[in-house]
Amino acid sequence: MIECVPNFSEGRNLEHVRLLEQAIASVSGLVVLHRTSDSDHHRSVITFVGKRGAVLEGAIRAAARAAELIDLNFHRGVHPRLGALDVLPFVPLAGSSLSECVALAHQAGERIWSELRIPVYFYEAAALRPERTRLEEVRRGQFEGIREAALHDPARRPDIGGPALHQTAGAVIVGARKILIAFNINLRTSQLEIAQAIAKAIRTSSGGLPAVKALGLPLLSRNLVQVSMNLTDFERTLPHVVFAEVSRLARGHGIEVEESELIGLIPRDAIEMAAAYSLKLSGFDSQWVIENKLDQLAIQGPRPY
Amino acid sequence: MIECVPNFSEGRNLEHVRLLEQAIASVSGLVVLHRTSDSDHHRSVITFVGKRGAVLEGAIRAAARAAELIDLNFHRGVHPRLGALDVLPFVPLAGSSLSECVALAHQAGERIWSELRIPVYFYEAAALRPERTRLEEVRRGQFEGIREAALHDPARRPDIGGPALHQTAGAVIVGARKILIAFNINLRTSQLEIAQAIAKAIRTSSGGLPAVKALGLPLLSRNLVQVSMNLTDFERTLPHVVFAEVSRLARGHGIEVEESELIGLIPRDAIEMAAAYSLKLSGFDSQWVIENKLDQLAIQGPRPY
Repeated sequence: MIECVPNFSEGRNLEHVRLLEQAIASVSGLVVLHRTSDSDHHRSVITFVGKRGAVLEGAIRAAARAAELIDLNFHRGVHPRLGALDVLPFVPLAGSSLSECVALAHQAGERIWSELRIPVYFYEAAALRPERTRLEEVRRGQFEGIREAALHDPARRPDIGGPALHQTAGAVIVGARKILIAFNINLRTSQLEIAQAIAKAIRTSSGGLPAVKALGLPLLSRNLVQVSMNLTDFERTLPHVVFAEVSRLARGHGIEVEESELIGLIPRDAIEMAAAYSLKLSGFDSQWVIENKLDQLAIQGPRPY
Repeated sequence: MIECVPNFSEGRNLEHVRLLEQAIASVSGLVVLHRTSDSDHHRSVITFVGKRGAVLEGAIRAAARAAELIDLNFHRGVHPRLGALDVLPFVPLAGSSLSECVALAHQAGERIWSELRIPVYFYEAAALRPERTRLEEVRRGQFEGIREAALHDPARRPDIGGPALHQTAGAVIVGARKILIAFNINLRTSQLEIAQAIAKAIRTSSGGLPAVKALGLPLLSRNLVQVSMNLTDFERTLPHVVFAEVSRLARGHGIEVEESELIGLIPRDAIEMAAAYSLKLSGFDSQWVIENKLDQLAIQGPRPY
């Protein structure tokens, strides 16, 4: 079983988002687990799962439909983006491996170029160049900047196709990665510089917490600012650690946390560890949860009841 | 499937606790989910599950073994107790009802008297008199006090057997109830009166939070005090609500919470709601947890993968 989490540059026209989901769900054997849209980000994330072949097919249909519906020349949102289908990560779940997901990412990239003529960059575990491991490096300059750079700078050229990007759909950044928690914390202020300062303080790339990517973004529709984060290895830095640190830094600015948001799904481990931390349950073990204990017994069956 | 959570008046001799567990596990079809012992309480709690007939048999064997191993005349612990096997609640899990557990409690009570000659009181949903619904009312005066009272006061007489209690094993308080969270919060002080004041402030019976029983107890071995609680309907008052309130009251006394403890298991819902609260995840839904979502899809199957 493999999870695929396409990020689309459409978060306002929900009819279009529905069509994107439909393109995925039209593949037999795929199940859409989750869908979320944000109008300030102008972006939607759909989470789906299935076996390898079905997931590949769903990803291609999603890329094709996104290219039909989205024209990046008219896209303005607060979240950086390079493509109509902007990011296409494959994630191993139980019974599959990261290397399978790398192979799948490469197959998807080949087909996106050969069938749709949209250039492809590979990132994280699927990267073909070490400097493209980090998504934010690949996406630096966004659609408008990379469109120019790719023509002249070999370092910015797509891994497959190009050098010209697709005129309306840009390029797709395809990757393989471990499960990621997309976690945003909204602050009760409209001062963007506070969110940006906190994002800078906590992100790995500027010496903050391990395995954290963070941006400070305005949520204009709500008159708030947001620390928008990807926790790329939640076993290294858990959401509750990030939450505590962002809350502490915000208090230093005299600002309260309004609320937080998950974009997509969260692993059970992260939820359990947040609960144990907040309740000060020392030595907490997942097997203290009655349903986990019963599930484990059922798996270990057969028992005579 | 029914859960049974016997509480034994033995928390120091762990070899004896092992024999109690063995008595239960010797019944085919039973699974011991959890075991916990506390030397200050001088008490152990074993959680086991199985089908009706097996659970009844396990409960009887546990009562018999406890009567062999424990002499209440020599038992000194901080937790109130009336019997060697002190409390014997039956709890409905998926696929069983509270009324089935009431019937089971009554069958167990009959056998404990007829086979072991230990008198029985019924409590909560299995109570035969309204004033015995509350466990703490049944146990008021403990072994030493009730042993006398039962002889002279019809209101304190066992529901089955007696009026004299068993000379060494006391009486068993048998009941049926919803799932309960036994949750203790330890405070960084040795001043018992602070734990007692907080316990009084939060317990339902003195106008505190709904569905909360609470006692202030000393943890002499650790030089701490404890607010020892039963959350008898966690959907009405969740552990994180209790934790926040106890922490707040403790701070009012200038005292910090050291840590908390679960005695037995905790339902997944309570863990998830604690996490959502602490992370300020507004509108949290259990289906945001990837494993829950996958489990639900598997249950709703068949899907082609």
